[in-house]
Amino acid sequence: MRYRSSVLAAALNGLTVNDAAHALSLEERGLNYGDGVFETMRLQHGAIRFIGSHLTRLTLGCERLSIAPPAEALLCSELATLTRDHRDGIVKLIVTRGAGGRGYRSNNLLPTRIALLYPVPSNATHSGITVRWCTTRLARNAQLAGIKHLNRLEQVLAQNEWHDESIAEGLMLDTEGELICATAGNLFIVRDGILVTPDLRFSGIRGVMREQVIASAQREQIVVEERALWPDELMSADEVFTTNAVRGIRSIVALDERRWMIGPITAQLLART
Amino acid sequence: MRYRSSVLAAALNGLTVNDAAHALSLEERGLNYGDGVFETMRLQHGAIRFIGSHLTRLTLGCERLSIAPPAEALLCSELATLTRDHRDGIVKLIVTRGAGGRGYRSNNLLPTRIALLYPVPSNATHSGITVRWCTTRLARNAQLAGIKHLNRLEQVLAQNEWHDESIAEGLMLDTEGELICATAGNLFIVRDGILVTPDLRFSGIRGVMREQVIASAQREQIVVEERALWPDELMSADEVFTTNAVRGIRSIVALDERRWMIGPITAQLLART
Repeated sequence: MRYRSSVLAAALNGLTVNDAAHALSLEERGLNYGDGVFETMRLQHGAIRFIGSHLTRLTLGCERLSIAPPAEALLCSELATLTRDHRDGIVKLIVTRGAGGRGYRSNNLLPTRIALLYPVPSNATHSGITVRWCTTRLARNAQLAGIKHLNRLEQVLAQNEWHDESIAEGLMLDTEGELICATAGNLFIVRDGILVTPDLRFSGIRGVMREQVIASAQREQIVVEERALWPDELMSADEVFTTNAVRGIRSIVALDERRWMIGPITAQLLART
Repeated sequence: MRYRSSVLAAALNGLTVNDAAHALSLEERGLNYGDGVFETMRLQHGAIRFIGSHLTRLTLGCERLSIAPPAEALLCSELATLTRDHRDGIVKLIVTRGAGGRGYRSNNLLPTRIALLYPVPSNATHSGITVRWCTTRLARNAQLAGIKHLNRLEQVLAQNEWHDESIAEGLMLDTEGELICATAGNLFIVRDGILVTPDLRFSGIRGVMREQVIASAQREQIVVEERALWPDELMSADEVFTTNAVRGIRSIVALDERRWMIGPITAQLLART
């Protein structure tokens, strides 16, 4: 099946791309090695939500990979140009080490900046979602944990495990059995009034919405624990929800035979984040 | 620094690409997620060495990722067209899940085929190499182990650990401390006349030259063990060498304070592979 692009606007290194299907170098290291980082952001009422947090994480990711981070002011300006004719959308920003020669080693390349604007998915709001367990596991590597790099085969394989559209997300364990995240979002549970989320010391992505939720909880005097989390703690939790920057907080209401209500702390955080 | 391409010839989905710098879709899943596999092959005297083994591994990699593998006859024909005006070179072949929309899930996309021809590196032959230890570790994930997928950030970070050109390779451990490979090659040791190579059950790539060396050893009545290997076994080994499809067998002669000679089994395998 030939894919029909839904891209509304695209830019490569700050220049508008009219033909996004024929734009990129075949020597792009983002293609050859997944050698870069990305952000997925929500354009809402003409502004990108949490743009500061997104650009901060992008810069941290570049630094972890020893990619010279583009100036945040430059990226802001390019994103403003990309989105100027739109009120709502999903903005994807990719920064790679650049287009370079064969071989893993890089040699002072110019990083590539790619910006794409997509329409908002029609199923972006939910009152509560059904999730499943994924069999694909996340590998543990502290050096790559937390940042949103382009090596995402584990998430691709996990999302391709199911095709039932009534299931909105899959929950992922790492190779040691720790509970880490949803395929495209972070995970929180509430037990005895305490909010718990995985500490992501060996795998997973430190989400922008995760950070916002933790900050909201702290303002609301809710105790937050970032620590190793295990599947049985989720099954016996009072409330469970996922977070990401596109879809916000989504309460989990069903997993296998287990059912939850949208609980009071989830509702409080939904109202205050 | 602007990168100056050394590409001799390029093809995208079998069509000659005259401008490899502006060819690929920004929605290419190889870029967005590292969602694909690749091969790096040696063109020598007008033919690609071990092309059958390379295409077999590529097909196995596609199947592991649930990418519909392109027909091997089609790939052979496209590689013949790519290389027809050249006697020697390095051929890189990439197959991705295709260009598709935003999000980890794919929907019956047409896989992308990318073929690039590069000149042979000037330092392609060696009598013996000096190596070092890398601090970057390989994550363990049996689901992705063995295949040559495009998620290669660990190798990129490892090769960027040193810039001393007298050091030809870096040796990599996994996160549990097992010895796995060189950054761009497999690893063999000889102890008491037995050839040992890591079994790659949790990480690393099952190299085409690794397979050739194992087959040569078996023909020569040398006992071969594929098993977990640990750094102290390497340090006390009689002979050590790396293998890859571009550079063949390379004897390791120095690592930290340790020195080795090119031993008899390495020499025998060099002559017979």
